[in-house]
Amino acid sequence: MSRIVTLASGQLGPIARDESRQSVVARLLELMREAKGMGARAIVFPELALTSFFPRWYFEDQADIDAFYEREMPNPATRPLFEASEELGMGFYLGYAELDGGNGQTRHYNTSILVDRGRIVGKYRKVHLPGHADHRPEAPFQHLEKRYFDVGNLGFGAWHAFDGIAGMCICNDRRWPETYRVLGLQGAEMIFLGYNTPTHIPWEPIYDHLSDFHNHLSMQAGAYQNSAFVVGTAKAGVEEGCDLLAGSCIIAPSGEIIALATTREDEVIVARCDLELSRHNKEHMFNFAQHRQIDQYGLITETAGAVEPRGRP
Amino acid sequence: MSRIVTLASGQLGPIARDESRQSVVARLLELMREAKGMGARAIVFPELALTSFFPRWYFEDQADIDAFYEREMPNPATRPLFEASEELGMGFYLGYAELDGGNGQTRHYNTSILVDRGRIVGKYRKVHLPGHADHRPEAPFQHLEKRYFDVGNLGFGAWHAFDGIAGMCICNDRRWPETYRVLGLQGAEMIFLGYNTPTHIPWEPIYDHLSDFHNHLSMQAGAYQNSAFVVGTAKAGVEEGCDLLAGSCIIAPSGEIIALATTREDEVIVARCDLELSRHNKEHMFNFAQHRQIDQYGLITETAGAVEPRGRP
Repeated sequence: MSRIVTLASGQLGPIARDESRQSVVARLLELMREAKGMGARAIVFPELALTSFFPRWYFEDQADIDAFYEREMPNPATRPLFEASEELGMGFYLGYAELDGGNGQTRHYNTSILVDRGRIVGKYRKVHLPGHADHRPEAPFQHLEKRYFDVGNLGFGAWHAFDGIAGMCICNDRRWPETYRVLGLQGAEMIFLGYNTPTHIPWEPIYDHLSDFHNHLSMQAGAYQNSAFVVGTAKAGVEEGCDLLAGSCIIAPSGEIIALATTREDEVIVARCDLELSRHNKEHMFNFAQHRQIDQYGLITETAGAVEPRGRP
Repeated sequence: MSRIVTLASGQLGPIARDESRQSVVARLLELMREAKGMGARAIVFPELALTSFFPRWYFEDQADIDAFYEREMPNPATRPLFEASEELGMGFYLGYAELDGGNGQTRHYNTSILVDRGRIVGKYRKVHLPGHADHRPEAPFQHLEKRYFDVGNLGFGAWHAFDGIAGMCICNDRRWPETYRVLGLQGAEMIFLGYNTPTHIPWEPIYDHLSDFHNHLSMQAGAYQNSAFVVGTAKAGVEEGCDLLAGSCIIAPSGEIIALATTREDEVIVARCDLELSRHNKEHMFNFAQHRQIDQYGLITETAGAVEPRGRP
């Protein structure tokens, strides 16, 4: 028995600061159509896929920041994506900056949506914001996600989609095993994530040469330990002078990379994913109900930071 | 600034069913002395290092099972290890089957101890017991850990040792990210683990060809995501007709394998480990207090098995 869904990763090359959303959406549409031609049921686009990765710049003026955010979704610029999704019978994951004015409070989120056949199925707001909130004028560029975004308030979500269960997370979330586990505990068989990852971290350069390894290690372990396919999609290449990691990939529940991008440009990769493999692993090696010992995991939800060693003699 | 500790992994080849504990201890002593000659401060031995991996056999008679367990530690057979530890000024991790008769109840545990300079520093009892409790006469061998052992009741512990903080876990624990996280949340800079892993799982053979990859993937991700050195030590080779995975290794907080066994026999590997690398990562990329969002992790401790998808539209 098998339950095949063909998934695509739609990697983007750089987006210039002055590139319009209309231009980016045209690129996304081309990737979506190309994926359709390769049999894909759904395509995963990057994090913050509609603009240049703006947290690299420090802005004094809130209006300059807010120009990068979407106030509604779909909106005139992104509507063609929804229409194509409906027309092609396809799903997509899209990351964007969301300005939410609900409840009389203005909030800024690093958001992704899951869309199927023109309809929004689910929304996620990034939980693990990397970088810093302070301006670092001495650095060649900033990573101001902790300044420009609020911590996501929707939880790690999974949804029935594409003949299985799909979950979402964003970029830095992929380095934290809690992300995949909370999705795995909702039965996620597919985990979609987009990322923008500078290959050089000015304030922590000692692992620059390992950024590709760390990217794949985290996603492969998350896939294996949660019996899920993972589709990770980069915004890649030299964007406004900043080199962004490529390495978009599709990972099987075995942890193996089964499709890998070979460029730092706009590129589609696909893989035929048998969701029954996910189910198989969930019923055997990683049968959570049979093997997990939740009374031993207390510290994970009790404390954010580390405590003193608690081992008994 | 650096804080160097040289750690060793002392891999064992097969132990025959009729090999005496005295004979095994002599092998362990040789590994310990060899490690000392390579500058090691501590050596990690395998899981259930004193006997053949007996959960592969089904026994009717409890006395046949109990013959594989230690009733006290140290005992006459293992005392030479404690004496060598004191004489050489070395530490060791040792896995063994523990029969605990405390509180008027007989309990069986898959246990490890951390010993330094002849003194027991800490004890751990395996939490994630793999395999099955039922007899499977049709299989070429059994994996009866769920029958022969009680779930560990001491928690995942870490201790001040070897100029840093050391934690312990055992074999299948290494596939579960919760293990490393609970240790990482106690500041563990070194994680020691021993394993006995058949390369062929009769009731789940589809991943036999990936057993080495899965072994390293789990430990590398655990090391990276918790900024710790991991020392993983196998009992390896063909033991009583059952092929056991080798691949003993020492992994840096970067996730890189920095020492790797090349045989399936008794073998020592060492690495100079700078615990300041662990501290560095804990203060930057994986600064738990700064980045972890524990109010989003609730499911991890709320439910052992998976629940329905909870994503909101």
